[in-house]
Amino acid sequence: MIDRFQALWRPLLDIGRAPGGGYARHGWNDADLACREWFAERAAERGMTLDQDRNGNLWAWWGEPGPDAVVTGSHLDSVPNGGAYDGPLGVVSGFLAADALRDRGVRPARPVAVTAFCEEEGARFGVACLGSRLLTGVLHPNRARALTDPDGVTLAAAMRGAGADPDALGRDEDTLSRIGVFVELHIEQGRALTHLDAPVGLASTIWPHGRWRFDFTGEANHAGTTRLADRRDPMLAFARTVLAARTAAGETGGLATVGRVAVEPNGTNAIPSRVRAWLDARAADGATLDRLVAAVAAEADEAAREDGTGVEVVAESLSPVVQFGAALRDRLAGVLGPVPVLATGAGHDAGILSGFVPTAMLFVRNPTGVSHAPAEHAPDEDCAAGVAALATVLEELACR
Amino acid sequence: MIDRFQALWRPLLDIGRAPGGGYARHGWNDADLACREWFAERAAERGMTLDQDRNGNLWAWWGEPGPDAVVTGSHLDSVPNGGAYDGPLGVVSGFLAADALRDRGVRPARPVAVTAFCEEEGARFGVACLGSRLLTGVLHPNRARALTDPDGVTLAAAMRGAGADPDALGRDEDTLSRIGVFVELHIEQGRALTHLDAPVGLASTIWPHGRWRFDFTGEANHAGTTRLADRRDPMLAFARTVLAARTAAGETGGLATVGRVAVEPNGTNAIPSRVRAWLDARAADGATLDRLVAAVAAEADEAAREDGTGVEVVAESLSPVVQFGAALRDRLAGVLGPVPVLATGAGHDAGILSGFVPTAMLFVRNPTGVSHAPAEHAPDEDCAAGVAALATVLEELACR
Repeated sequence: MIDRFQALWRPLLDIGRAPGGGYARHGWNDADLACREWFAERAAERGMTLDQDRNGNLWAWWGEPGPDAVVTGSHLDSVPNGGAYDGPLGVVSGFLAADALRDRGVRPARPVAVTAFCEEEGARFGVACLGSRLLTGVLHPNRARALTDPDGVTLAAAMRGAGADPDALGRDEDTLSRIGVFVELHIEQGRALTHLDAPVGLASTIWPHGRWRFDFTGEANHAGTTRLADRRDPMLAFARTVLAARTAAGETGGLATVGRVAVEPNGTNAIPSRVRAWLDARAADGATLDRLVAAVAAEADEAAREDGTGVEVVAESLSPVVQFGAALRDRLAGVLGPVPVLATGAGHDAGILSGFVPTAMLFVRNPTGVSHAPAEHAPDEDCAAGVAALATVLEELACR
Repeated sequence: MIDRFQALWRPLLDIGRAPGGGYARHGWNDADLACREWFAERAAERGMTLDQDRNGNLWAWWGEPGPDAVVTGSHLDSVPNGGAYDGPLGVVSGFLAADALRDRGVRPARPVAVTAFCEEEGARFGVACLGSRLLTGVLHPNRARALTDPDGVTLAAAMRGAGADPDALGRDEDTLSRIGVFVELHIEQGRALTHLDAPVGLASTIWPHGRWRFDFTGEANHAGTTRLADRRDPMLAFARTVLAARTAAGETGGLATVGRVAVEPNGTNAIPSRVRAWLDARAADGATLDRLVAAVAAEADEAAREDGTGVEVVAESLSPVVQFGAALRDRLAGVLGPVPVLATGAGHDAGILSGFVPTAMLFVRNPTGVSHAPAEHAPDEDCAAGVAALATVLEELACR
């Protein structure tokens, strides 16, 4: 199984990788299109029927497409300078698990599909799980079409440039009704399985999480001539907010990160007119998350007031807690044997799908815990164990 | 004189202005080339001889070029989203002062030239006073050619794209030897003249100032899954450094600004691997400036050590204090009558030239003190007073 994993995995590593080792696979960019081509070739060589749905999600069908299909998969896009495993491991494992069933002569009683959802990371257009949100109708197509990337290109324009039709975006009842159950395999984004000495685990919940945009506004002026007393420098309240976010995360047991910043005019000798920053925050439950974000916003307000600057906080996205169904999880644990059950702070397409169909997640051990970075890694042996577990799960779901 | 000022000034306002009102005139970009064209046309309509020297600085000569010329001028480029006056006011005033002398029938005993130095703000290639530094040999041409803009375009490539020859860059003895005396007129970048109720002032010194790049390094990781204890997030030490810079400026009576930031990978859900920030710092004397920067660097070091991250500080430029010669200043004050004498925190081409030729500066009142921003403004009446003062100065220097 390790040989097979390596054979399918390694060619994919060359697509969209920068010289520094990180990936730049973002919805509808050249690397993303190359990944789609890779997916189509893998489906074709298995005799699977390829379908690109109206929202740009890819489907490779073993047997007639739906209804009541057993679907597995993940996504192929990355964060900026991302790692190889987050997303692609689930897609590759899906193909390999299907291969394993066929090699064993398994004849599924239900259709089986491998899927790759579009723009899960939201790296280009700012909305995570774009493809699964559109598929399920959680995101309105009008809002999606108007989303812009950092260069000001709309999703609609990017799709047209790639030969896709943005007018077709929106809730896709035909595709959604085919999915009987969805199982996403994903590299773990922490070290819980390492501490538990287990190669594979099952998901219990996804923490509620969201993104808040903080617009700190002041007055652009000359850095070399404007007296301190005359300044309205928004960088100061921004800096206090960064530190407040870490403090609030520690106090609530949650997570808070400021990882994206845009400064205007961003000149060395110019006091900024605006600092725009994004807060990513997560916590074990919704009330705790609210408390965390409120504490950060309060510090931002106070800092801005003291400096004579301004701040506006906009909630860009908020994903409530996801509880994966206990019945499905218990059924999978029954065939997998004793496996750890973990909560995670990361959003996934499985979290979106869980509101519509029975959904489960499998995690594969990540010894360093590094995620969303070029050093993200899972050993080949653990990846093979993940494929074996996924094959066991698919057989249970498709045949019994 | 106000009519004449408006007639020459207003057409220039349309070049390189964004819809928001700010300017994006940067060395060798389209707006900069349009400004050069504007300069050439103004020289031609006055019968002045146009010269672009080897370093891209422009010269309009009244009479045979040099030696022992009386030179006035400033620059036409802007900071990002800059104002209309910083630079162009000195060039426009130079042409108008020459016009005034000719209208009065003045026959200069020495050549007179109006100049526009290249890329004074350093907004595109990161080195301020690029044209005057190259002219005087303060900056080596090899270093200049390799400078890159934010898109990775080298100065050499940008010059070639604009039809200029980067191989010709470097100390230009022929041009430098023509300059007998240099007087730069500039909008004031503060409100001292406003408080003193005077439209025009003379410069005493330019504070020593510099730019330091702080590279804060950590480890990129997933914002939603990496425990606080496992993080090496460089954004935190950066934030503490921003606040330390303001504190150190207050304690030393200097100025310190963090106005430019670049985050990698700059994703909302990614802990940064690197935060690069630039400190602009100025103080009344070199020892105080050293103390200010050392205090900021010490806080950056301590913060990074506490977080398990790293920081490296690189001095990108350092301009020592400039003392404009008292003899020339006293001579000009003698013909101008009683005018205020001011120190400034802003660097200027006059500061570079002062190491090589007798140099003086005139400031024009700026009621709001706003500089390096679209709201930068001087009233037409004060601009006209500036032109009159500059004409008096040129006549004194060129005829007596």
